[in-house]
Amino acid sequence: MSHSIKEIAAALGAEAFGDIDLRVSGVAEPALAQDCDLALAMKPDFAAGLPDGQARAAMLWPGADWQSLGLKAAIVATRPRFAMAGLSAMMDPGQGYASGIHPSAVIDPSAQLGKDVSVGPLAVISAGTRIGAGSVIGPQCFIGTDAVLGQECFLREGVKIGARVKIGDRFIAQPGATVGGDGFSFVTPEESTIERVRDSLGDQGDLAAQSYARIHSLGSVSIGNDVELGANSCIDRGTVRDTQIGNGVKFDNLAQIGHNVVIGDDCLICAQVGVAGSSRIGRNVVLGGQTGVSDNLFIGDHVITGGATKVLANVPAGRVMLGYPAMKMQTHIEVYKGLRRLPRLFRDVAALQKAVSKSTKTD
Amino acid sequence: MSHSIKEIAAALGAEAFGDIDLRVSGVAEPALAQDCDLALAMKPDFAAGLPDGQARAAMLWPGADWQSLGLKAAIVATRPRFAMAGLSAMMDPGQGYASGIHPSAVIDPSAQLGKDVSVGPLAVISAGTRIGAGSVIGPQCFIGTDAVLGQECFLREGVKIGARVKIGDRFIAQPGATVGGDGFSFVTPEESTIERVRDSLGDQGDLAAQSYARIHSLGSVSIGNDVELGANSCIDRGTVRDTQIGNGVKFDNLAQIGHNVVIGDDCLICAQVGVAGSSRIGRNVVLGGQTGVSDNLFIGDHVITGGATKVLANVPAGRVMLGYPAMKMQTHIEVYKGLRRLPRLFRDVAALQKAVSKSTKTD
Amino acid sequence: MSHSIKEIAAALGAEAFGDIDLRVSGVAEPALAQDCDLALAMKPDFAAGLPDGQARAAMLWPGADWQSLGLKAAIVATRPRFAMAGLSAMMDPGQGYASGIHPSAVIDPSAQLGKDVSVGPLAVISAGTRIGAGSVIGPQCFIGTDAVLGQECFLREGVKIGARVKIGDRFIAQPGATVGGDGFSFVTPEESTIERVRDSLGDQGDLAAQSYARIHSLGSVSIGNDVELGANSCIDRGTVRDTQIGNGVKFDNLAQIGHNVVIGDDCLICAQVGVAGSSRIGRNVVLGGQTGVSDNLFIGDHVITGGATKVLANVPAGRVMLGYPAMKMQTHIEVYKGLRRLPRLFRDVAALQKAVSKSTKTD
Repeated sequence: MSHSIKEIAAALGAEAFGDIDLRVSGVAEPALAQDCDLALAMKPDFAAGLPDGQARAAMLWPGADWQSLGLKAAIVATRPRFAMAGLSAMMDPGQGYASGIHPSAVIDPSAQLGKDVSVGPLAVISAGTRIGAGSVIGPQCFIGTDAVLGQECFLREGVKIGARVKIGDRFIAQPGATVGGDGFSFVTPEESTIERVRDSLGDQGDLAAQSYARIHSLGSVSIGNDVELGANSCIDRGTVRDTQIGNGVKFDNLAQIGHNVVIGDDCLICAQVGVAGSSRIGRNVVLGGQTGVSDNLFIGDHVITGGATKVLANVPAGRVMLGYPAMKMQTHIEVYKGLRRLPRLFRDVAALQKAVSKSTKTD
Repeated sequence: MSHSIKEIAAALGAEAFGDIDLRVSGVAEPALAQDCDLALAMKPDFAAGLPDGQARAAMLWPGADWQSLGLKAAIVATRPRFAMAGLSAMMDPGQGYASGIHPSAVIDPSAQLGKDVSVGPLAVISAGTRIGAGSVIGPQCFIGTDAVLGQECFLREGVKIGARVKIGDRFIAQPGATVGGDGFSFVTPEESTIERVRDSLGDQGDLAAQSYARIHSLGSVSIGNDVELGANSCIDRGTVRDTQIGNGVKFDNLAQIGHNVVIGDDCLICAQVGVAGSSRIGRNVVLGGQTGVSDNLFIGDHVITGGATKVLANVPAGRVMLGYPAMKMQTHIEVYKGLRRLPRLFRDVAALQKAVSKSTKTD
Repeated sequence: MSHSIKEIAAALGAEAFGDIDLRVSGVAEPALAQDCDLALAMKPDFAAGLPDGQARAAMLWPGADWQSLGLKAAIVATRPRFAMAGLSAMMDPGQGYASGIHPSAVIDPSAQLGKDVSVGPLAVISAGTRIGAGSVIGPQCFIGTDAVLGQECFLREGVKIGARVKIGDRFIAQPGATVGGDGFSFVTPEESTIERVRDSLGDQGDLAAQSYARIHSLGSVSIGNDVELGANSCIDRGTVRDTQIGNGVKFDNLAQIGHNVVIGDDCLICAQVGVAGSSRIGRNVVLGGQTGVSDNLFIGDHVITGGATKVLANVPAGRVMLGYPAMKMQTHIEVYKGLRRLPRLFRDVAALQKAVSKSTKTD
């Protein structure tokens, strides 16, 4: 599948220069580009590799002199990083799933599949499900009883959606992602050591051994439109009401969202993030990779956490946080600068003690 | 499926008031309750939402005046949180898996299935397996050669149990959980840099590049009764003897248990916890979310770790730990209070140095 | 399957003593060994358990007096830990997968399977794939369009390999591992708060709410020979070129490798490690469990990180790192020693302030 430079520029709302009928069938880094590729040289640094490759056309930065770079054609976008979204969508060869319903799929007769829904080999579609038009259920996926998916969803191989989960349009799920596992909620017959420690901050009192009883998850999971869920990520169902994910939320791989969590629109939840039960996350929040959020907390809108931030208390809107426990990023930078100078501080204080003691004696 | 207030109270060992023949078919938060729901208002705060909903019956706290709340019936339990376990079990609509053996499941003729075992679509049951009465093997599950499961187990979609794994009764596994992956155990022909660093704490000496040879896992995994395993969690097999999980242990999602680990009864292992190879965990231990435990350590009974605690040394029984590296929670609180005051301390010491230097000069 | 002491010693390049025709069929810890087992007593400490078991033969340390231990035969290797690799490979009972192509597998007619390839029940092999001789595709595995696997690969149950992924020989993948999920790459129409924070270290400026557009992953994943991938681990495809994994790299469970990452030969990537997009890892690197590496970083050859190290900046070759943020291990040990003594330091400085203030007054 090839596209002309003209077609690509039009699709991206970008400018085209030179031989705009030239066709390209892929994209590549400048040095690795073949003559059928569009080279990606959106910064002057990247253009240095053009002579090492064979690209005749490139995507360049605003103001680039495409002719002096030895190109036959060029595309220039005002925000090249954003143009990459459109360009990559055009050029994506996809997963090559066959369309239609594979005969090996196990589909309950009561399932309602919209127009042009595809179901891959060995997928299971349970009773009472509804799947919107144009959605693709990949190989070996599972859709549980009475689950609802919107239109134009795309589920990669082995995705698992539990009973009664409700998902909007254009949902994308990577391999092995799972929605609707039961929440992790257990209770002891008598007050437990954890409950006591929450009150006492450390004193466990008598240590009676107790076993746990399971609190079943009666709620489900509700997911908005345009959500993406990473490989082997998990979103648990709620205890009484649904766990709720807003529109436009993107989860990377191996993320963990506990029961009853509420996440606002347009958040980025990076890889290996964990949000514990009943915490609420605002909108346009970014949780960096391996961030942890304790249970029953509130994270305000537009909060950003750096990689591996461990949030143990509420965070007001707009804060940029880092560290364990989480601090404002500026505080964290100061504190850790001090930390590295600690050994010297101990020496300075010892010297002072000596000086003062001497001075006291000599008084 | 509906229940009368009388039936529910009897099942929970709780008291029933008012129109105890009133039937409810679900539970809900007070403000969202419909007239067929039992509202959950186990604290006075929660009862404030009752007028916004339509519940005619509620579960209340001890001493609540149910009549003044406008209810027709009420249930009162002495420990409402514990009653929630029984109540949620009664009200759980479940996953809606069909009972019986689905014709698409691939079951080896030598597998021994107890009475009333259900096997979902596209599940694989290998040779020599034994599965106890009443167990449910969900859709697309895998049970490996000679594996043994007890009675009344419940495996959600896509659970994978490796060869020779032994599991007790009432095991619950969430989607994508896996038991019996091989341990992560590799060795270099000559002493490796890691072995050397363990001795020298930092000096790597000569840096010879070596490749790793694999130590196969000859042991398996033994799991007691009443264990629950979270979505996409992993328990590895042992090197020579089995990795061992006690009775009543509950694992949340994405937990990782290394080879040869031993975990005592009634532990809670929260989401994204990792326990490295050959560590031993006592009984009634709680490892908070994202806790890490290094290899070959010992964690005593009743230990509790806060979220993201990184345990790099043994922990005696009964300790409550937090931080990286793990400290007693009280110490951690003091230390981190100090940490935030560090910039001020540097200023104070600088001022002292100036004062002392001046005083010395004036002497 | 049993082996004589002579055969085992020959296979390991070790010395055999006593009744070298004695046959053993398994290995065991000394105290648990039955008379058909080879006891593993590679250190004098371990030999103490021999009288409690029934082993007639044991693997011992260099210089051990096997006769005084009551044994009939013994094997002695110069580096017993390395010998364990060969021994465990001989003794591994394996997963018991049937050989051949299971009739329930869904295999596209265009797939090219080498000699003696096995495909388990309910596996899916897509169009255009090539699988090398002797490889085993386990039950319920998925191999995507045009993917290539080398010879003698072994994929456990439920492994998922995406379209166009290229993997070398002797690849081993544990249950639920997935290669070739899409990268986590999103862009806002206008400059986002994250981009701004990267420049300003904290000041978010105006907080305009924006939604994210998806950058598709056009690259794939290239994996060398002798790589092992742990259970439920994830390796994402690259944006333009492939994510690259060298030869001999071993990943433990639940590891996460982002798009465009490059990892050199013979690295150990322990459980729950996350490497963010576009970072480059040298060769013979060891990343301890739960290590996190931020995006776009460079980690030199032979670097070792301790458990839960959070790498937020480049690390030169040969360094041993620990902590969050990562420091040289020696620095970390000093700094954390100081940290625990902080409360005392505050008291000392307060005392000094008092003394100096008094001394100043009395001057």
